[in-house]
Amino acid sequence: MPHESWELLGSEYLKHYRVVRLREDRYRFKPTGEEAPFVVCESANWVIVLPITDQEEVVFIRQFRHGVQQNVLEVPGGIVDPGESPEEAAQRELREETGYEADKIEILGELLPNPALNNAWFHVALATGCRLVSQPEFDGWETIETLLKPRSKVREMIRNGELTHAQVVAAFALWEAKSNSH
Amino acid sequence: MPHESWELLGSEYLKHYRVVRLREDRYRFKPTGEEAPFVVCESANWVIVLPITDQEEVVFIRQFRHGVQQNVLEVPGGIVDPGESPEEAAQRELREETGYEADKIEILGELLPNPALNNAWFHVALATGCRLVSQPEFDGWETIETLLKPRSKVREMIRNGELTHAQVVAAFALWEAKSNSH
Repeated sequence: MPHESWELLGSEYLKHYRVVRLREDRYRFKPTGEEAPFVVCESANWVIVLPITDQEEVVFIRQFRHGVQQNVLEVPGGIVDPGESPEEAAQRELREETGYEADKIEILGELLPNPALNNAWFHVALATGCRLVSQPEFDGWETIETLLKPRSKVREMIRNGELTHAQVVAAFALWEAKSNSH
Repeated sequence: MPHESWELLGSEYLKHYRVVRLREDRYRFKPTGEEAPFVVCESANWVIVLPITDQEEVVFIRQFRHGVQQNVLEVPGGIVDPGESPEEAAQRELREETGYEADKIEILGELLPNPALNNAWFHVALATGCRLVSQPEFDGWETIETLLKPRSKVREMIRNGELTHAQVVAAFALWEAKSNSH
């Protein structure tokens, strides 16, 4: 069993940011006896929302992402706050980032964004009956565009490279796998 | 346009690890004039390999991942080394991690694992005609199990939570979107 190859020797925090805490874990790799540090980007779990309108449109967003230093097409989402359920976080993020509200939120499952680097999981929330009820309420650090696209176009958007955010692609794949369509 | 809201004021490296370099970028958010640091986990791009045998089986692996401190079911993959093409990296990682070799490697596209935190993209490589040709050749820090599963079971593995690595789920979704099956 691979995990028996690794002994955690200790952990220390390097630096805290708004969402992420950098932690360094030191391991001994038992097969060789060698030791090495591994960095973990520690955060709370987050939620990725698939917001669907009654017209079978998906409410996409586009926002600046600091990792790639460019605007990225994705869907609403964010960290699940303390004391909040994933469903509540999904409804809140949907409302704040787009001004849309869902009739129903269903958690489809949990996925690992990057288990080599992140400790967190993300919940996939299917939000149906979405309608525009207000202006978005961005936090102090957001400027977000909303884009409606037919749900039937998502496969094509993945194929032609329009939708490249792997967590969003995986969220749609989980929905597809859980649906009864085939 | 959201990206015009952000002015990059400066960058500095915090620490270098084997694969990842931690970089801190300082931005001014123009709408409010406030400044804040954002951490970027800088690395070379990597490749995720979907290895398929002539018996329509997928060569999965299971390995310890330090972010979640547990074994994770995924597929072979790794960093594209300097001077290497994504196809070459796919063939090399497949061989090193599993002992399998592909007849043909086709790059299906590129996805963003986490554009908020990572600068890197990952290539999705479809590796067909895979057959076991040697023992795996782990680098100094790997202990990896190989598991063969029928390709027809992948959708069920996503649905039942057996396959939770979002990059791998997204890679299969890209393959699905690019296939002519429906």
